[in-house]
Amino acid sequence: MLVKRGAVLVLSGPSGAGKSSLVNEIINDIGDCYFSISTTTRKMREGEKEGVDYHFVTEEEFKKGIENDEFLEYAVVHGNYYGTSLLPVKEALSQGKLVIFDIDVQGNVSVNNRLGDITTSVFITPPSLSELKRRLAKRGTDSPEVIEKRIENAKKEIQRVSEYDFLIINDDLKNAASQLRLIAKTARMKHPTEEINEFIQKWENA
Amino acid sequence: MLVKRGAVLVLSGPSGAGKSSLVNEIINDIGDCYFSISTTTRKMREGEKEGVDYHFVTEEEFKKGIENDEFLEYAVVHGNYYGTSLLPVKEALSQGKLVIFDIDVQGNVSVNNRLGDITTSVFITPPSLSELKRRLAKRGTDSPEVIEKRIENAKKEIQRVSEYDFLIINDDLKNAASQLRLIAKTARMKHPTEEINEFIQKWENA
Repeated sequence: MLVKRGAVLVLSGPSGAGKSSLVNEIINDIGDCYFSISTTTRKMREGEKEGVDYHFVTEEEFKKGIENDEFLEYAVVHGNYYGTSLLPVKEALSQGKLVIFDIDVQGNVSVNNRLGDITTSVFITPPSLSELKRRLAKRGTDSPEVIEKRIENAKKEIQRVSEYDFLIINDDLKNAASQLRLIAKTARMKHPTEEINEFIQKWENA
Repeated sequence: MLVKRGAVLVLSGPSGAGKSSLVNEIINDIGDCYFSISTTTRKMREGEKEGVDYHFVTEEEFKKGIENDEFLEYAVVHGNYYGTSLLPVKEALSQGKLVIFDIDVQGNVSVNNRLGDITTSVFITPPSLSELKRRLAKRGTDSPEVIEKRIENAKKEIQRVSEYDFLIINDDLKNAASQLRLIAKTARMKHPTEEINEFIQKWENA
């Protein structure tokens, strides 16, 4: 048997797709996980906590991280830096954990470039644009301008669904959760290329 | 919800890996399946049945099939033609079935070229070369020459494991079966690109 060295599950999709609710539904069934927490230079908002919502750092710290190649991926959005530190991800993987990323389509590309052999990617979407609008309005946490921006973003992102291994249409939480549960469990079975190569070498001599 | 239009599960690996036993273990749990049966021009052996082991055809019939682009993949092995007819596969897919192929690494490449968007591929192997030799000898169905050929073939094929989505090391039937069961269930969740594109188009207007 190969030792399982952890694997990666990428979740993308518009705010309002229900990613957090879905993850909460399955979290007890899929074994040891690590939720990747992004690092950002944007200001902490009311109610947010360091190390829970984001790692909040200064622009200087962030740029130093870039120089030292510490980020798995990063992007600048509306003048703020957002990124994923590689170190905690590597640590979690070495402990055999399933590392879960909640990132956008560009982040998915970056993760696949670095960790494609052990990555399974899932795009989660509400059943329709009108349903997305309804959910964002009902949530009542965003200003009309932010909702408009989220919707424009969702329209763009959904065009790239085919870059993902799986599409889950979240029109029923229980049903969508059972799909994500299966995908997450199966995601753990991916082996790093390095390990596969070691296995092949040993296989002939064992 | 998208209609599930069927999906493909490719199983490869040396004779002696235990593919048939594994499939028998999971067959009742994974829903409606269609086992792709290969077509060949080689002579029917004692105990073999038309439509069970192979579809047995003449070389003339086979070549006509090639001309008419009826094969998903085909190869010539030791002077005999072996191939997979596309028509029954398409029929099974349109009925929402999981089409299971037991084919070699070259066949996997061909299936992925044609049906890559809905294909999940699994390489199944005994834990070591010595264990493979033991199993083939124990089975007692092959001549020493055939065993030698199978072993040489296994050595070549295992070099290409990284072309597969998953590797299952069959050192324990129950354990390997539970892995394959999960993979097979998850395999059903792949959507054809065509359907994804339809969904995207509808999504904005619904």
